[in-house]
Amino acid sequence: MTTAAVDRVNRCFARLTEVDRPEAWISIRPQGEVIAEAAEIDRRTAAGEALPLAGLVFGVKDNIDVTGLPTTAGHPGFSHLPERTATAVARLIEAGALVIGKTNLDQFATGLVGTRSPYGAVRNARHPERISGGSSAGSAVAVALGVVDFALGTDTAGSGRVPAALNRIVGLKSSYGIVPLDGVVPACRSYDCVTAFAADVGLATAVTRIMAGPSALSPSSRAWPADVVLGAPPAPRVAVPAPRFLDVLSAPHRASFAASVESLVAHGAVIAEIDLQPFLDCARLLYDGALVSERSAAYGEFLAGHPDGADPTVARIAAAAATRTGPELVADQEAVARYRLLTRGLLEGFDALLVPTAPEHPTLAEVSADPLGVNSRMGLFTNFMNLLDMAGVAVPAAGADIAGDGAADGEFGVTVVVRGFEDQVAVDLAAVLTGEDRPPVLPTGGIELALFGAHLSGQPLNHQLVERGARLVGPVRTSADYRMVALPTTPAKPGIVRATGAGVSLAAEIWSLSPAALGDFLALLPRPMALGRLTFADGVERLGFLCSEPEGPDISAAGGWLNHLAGATPGTPSA
Amino acid sequence: MTTAAVDRVNRCFARLTEVDRPEAWISIRPQGEVIAEAAEIDRRTAAGEALPLAGLVFGVKDNIDVTGLPTTAGHPGFSHLPERTATAVARLIEAGALVIGKTNLDQFATGLVGTRSPYGAVRNARHPERISGGSSAGSAVAVALGVVDFALGTDTAGSGRVPAALNRIVGLKSSYGIVPLDGVVPACRSYDCVTAFAADVGLATAVTRIMAGPSALSPSSRAWPADVVLGAPPAPRVAVPAPRFLDVLSAPHRASFAASVESLVAHGAVIAEIDLQPFLDCARLLYDGALVSERSAAYGEFLAGHPDGADPTVARIAAAAATRTGPELVADQEAVARYRLLTRGLLEGFDALLVPTAPEHPTLAEVSADPLGVNSRMGLFTNFMNLLDMAGVAVPAAGADIAGDGAADGEFGVTVVVRGFEDQVAVDLAAVLTGEDRPPVLPTGGIELALFGAHLSGQPLNHQLVERGARLVGPVRTSADYRMVALPTTPAKPGIVRATGAGVSLAAEIWSLSPAALGDFLALLPRPMALGRLTFADGVERLGFLCSEPEGPDISAAGGWLNHLAGATPGTPSA
Repeated sequence: MTTAAVDRVNRCFARLTEVDRPEAWISIRPQGEVIAEAAEIDRRTAAGEALPLAGLVFGVKDNIDVTGLPTTAGHPGFSHLPERTATAVARLIEAGALVIGKTNLDQFATGLVGTRSPYGAVRNARHPERISGGSSAGSAVAVALGVVDFALGTDTAGSGRVPAALNRIVGLKSSYGIVPLDGVVPACRSYDCVTAFAADVGLATAVTRIMAGPSALSPSSRAWPADVVLGAPPAPRVAVPAPRFLDVLSAPHRASFAASVESLVAHGAVIAEIDLQPFLDCARLLYDGALVSERSAAYGEFLAGHPDGADPTVARIAAAAATRTGPELVADQEAVARYRLLTRGLLEGFDALLVPTAPEHPTLAEVSADPLGVNSRMGLFTNFMNLLDMAGVAVPAAGADIAGDGAADGEFGVTVVVRGFEDQVAVDLAAVLTGEDRPPVLPTGGIELALFGAHLSGQPLNHQLVERGARLVGPVRTSADYRMVALPTTPAKPGIVRATGAGVSLAAEIWSLSPAALGDFLALLPRPMALGRLTFADGVERLGFLCSEPEGPDISAAGGWLNHLAGATPGTPSA
Repeated sequence: MTTAAVDRVNRCFARLTEVDRPEAWISIRPQGEVIAEAAEIDRRTAAGEALPLAGLVFGVKDNIDVTGLPTTAGHPGFSHLPERTATAVARLIEAGALVIGKTNLDQFATGLVGTRSPYGAVRNARHPERISGGSSAGSAVAVALGVVDFALGTDTAGSGRVPAALNRIVGLKSSYGIVPLDGVVPACRSYDCVTAFAADVGLATAVTRIMAGPSALSPSSRAWPADVVLGAPPAPRVAVPAPRFLDVLSAPHRASFAASVESLVAHGAVIAEIDLQPFLDCARLLYDGALVSERSAAYGEFLAGHPDGADPTVARIAAAAATRTGPELVADQEAVARYRLLTRGLLEGFDALLVPTAPEHPTLAEVSADPLGVNSRMGLFTNFMNLLDMAGVAVPAAGADIAGDGAADGEFGVTVVVRGFEDQVAVDLAAVLTGEDRPPVLPTGGIELALFGAHLSGQPLNHQLVERGARLVGPVRTSADYRMVALPTTPAKPGIVRATGAGVSLAAEIWSLSPAALGDFLALLPRPMALGRLTFADGVERLGFLCSEPEGPDISAAGGWLNHLAGATPGTPSA
């Protein structure tokens, strides 16, 4: 019997002691209790159960409920034992992952520094004199130091991205509502998201996929739309800020940003500069306007009544927020709606926007000296995302080494930002930046379709799939029950017909399409093309191309269209 | 050359004089100006241009901008000439319709009575001693009296439905954001909708379809989703309020409601009672909580600065709204989100909800005596709809005659209420109630698919289309290029194959599916079914069923599957 999960837990607790970062955690479960759960996971795995996250260990930001552990939101007086585990966490546990404990945060998730907590300022994983970033401070540090495999954060202003950047890990903030918010202490409920930190894009994506999906417990949760995008195109059009917006970066960080851009270009991206000002103007609404009313509604009364244990900066923000009027809030909410329209226009024709994640990496001393000022600067490139209903993946900058291990200026990361529900584009481009191959698919609901001819990768009609957000899954071969003719069409196409027991095995590509993309694609097809179910060499039946009028020379002997195009076998007249 | 448009305009102005309801209008265009435009429409029609609303005349509620006419929103001091015509109106003009003038309303669209206007209390079209209902008072009366073919209203609390009910016409409030809001004076911007009044469901739907579609000028505009519902099922499940919620109705009106329910049952509907309380509780948030902050933001400052011409009740509402705090507004917005989730649950399994439109039909004297109280009662069954992101069509109650021409208790109507983006279900059921055949389709984007066998209406797999919101378009026949075999499947199905020049013409049904429904439906199909393009007797190529493995007796001679099932012709062994 495997002991993989038990072993992982033991390594986790050993590493916890070894790294000696007590301020990263607010509560840690007894090792024996986690070991008992790990043993059960090992037993289930041995019994053949498929648990996608079997034996992975994770930390949970302490504004997300887990039964048996107090939720503090970074305020000792707020500490209470929740009645149920947040849906997001429950889904991870169901998938075989093991909660280790609750991580430290800027109080009530209000901050991007990781120092606004009576449980201690969280030191950076790599540069202890610098900040971890926040508000999901402990989660990011626990992942960066290899204590846990992944950790959960929350993100309203950048709390799931800034700490990723400053600790050289990956932070994935999916579209608003994709991960249910029940059991999460609100900061700004209209913009809060649960996020995943991991060492790579692949795991952050897999974790988010498991947390995702509507919940009847979360009024704001949203399903993936029927036309969800399932992949980045091979030549993505990526917007970058015009140079003046990068003036705030140190020279090494600017070079690092440029290296990230070059890395995308090397993988086929087409880059263009845009005016970032409307994004930055919108960003200011998050703290400088009346939207802070949401923070006041969420925890203002509590902080006013519990000054002991309150972080003074957070308390000051909440107190000021209480004085905002309803009509002021309406005006700012309408301003956000106008910025959504305006920035959509600026990004028209682009697949993604690449920005620095944070403009600098301050020391703990700098934050102590100017807590509001430094914090405000930290959100420069992140504050707009949630307001504008966007998603993004924060990764270490491709040229992080240029900055000499961050010694002089600290760490630097970049974020791939996309329109809401286009999360997979950000995942795919982020994986390019980290050098990962083919990350998993975040949205569910894709339908597989087998292609044989002009729609294959690189062929003349492939753009019809790419434009509809389809995703290449991989090659496949039919069972030996099909024949192929060369149709007299422009562009040239094969016609696939069933010939049970009298055919050959034909080479195909599988693509995954959203239901709407599939319907839309089908509506494009001219006579004599049809889509129906075929049998494949792996025993699976899949949708694929068929031909209703197979007129043309039989080219089955080529075994596939690309072979035929390469002239491997001449066509022979069809029967 | 036709003079249809010119004639229509002349009849309109004659009727305007004849009905003598000056208070229904705030401004009317010079007849000569409209005649000149009508002549141009007649010229274009004669030249062969297809204008879907050619020569129809309409009124525009005076909180919607039309260049050349002042916009007052019911306050003389607010009067100003707008710089551009609202997109909704511009699209109607482009379709050949002619604006006659601007109609009277409850000031700033705040009211359901039609009396809150310095331009005069609008008298009911049928019972001049009773109210017209509001806020879209003049628009409803102008349609009801046959002055115009249709008119535009706006609807936040019920302003596009209550006046329809009280004047025995149709009022269509589509899903939020479907009709752009640019050029519309806001009341509660998060919930405001532009609506259509007409004598029948067909024209109200056609008008709304033309106004619909995203606009870059309207931040809140929304496109139909890729899985939009295109039709009501043949046996719709309709929720009705449990009897206690109908106690507020007079006995004749209660009988009238029951007659409407019976009318749906007679057309196949399955009825069940539900608890309406959560809907009514949510409804109270619209005026009794902090959501009125939106009204304060929209026109509070103006009314405070322009007491002359202000309706005293509206001014009082706006003044009280100014004192609401940001955190209070947040709390109420979150309450709305919770009610959305809760009421979605209550309507799970239902296609629609049928409610009375207004609970009573007050006299002008009753409103004068208690302006706030009567108004508040009027919104009982309408106030929840926009808050809950629902759509609806208000129609005269099926048994309106039961109420003795409304003499004793005034007019009474019912509203078919549906979830957002399921507008067509409301349109279809409303047409059942008015006795109209096959109303037009409101959403765009449907894709036609021809069916031949087990998916036909009444056949065993037809539910696969109905469940996906598909809509029957009608019968069609293929060109004489197809053959049909009886496949050995369960349930029995025909296999359609191309036999150019050697086939027969086969009977089929066309259905319209959303792109997502089509993709989803395709993914369901087992071997050997396929979908591809076929040729039809009318010369059109359409998507339809094809068969990739046509094994079974040739039954082409039947000319169609239903004939075959009826035993018209025995199958003969296929070649």
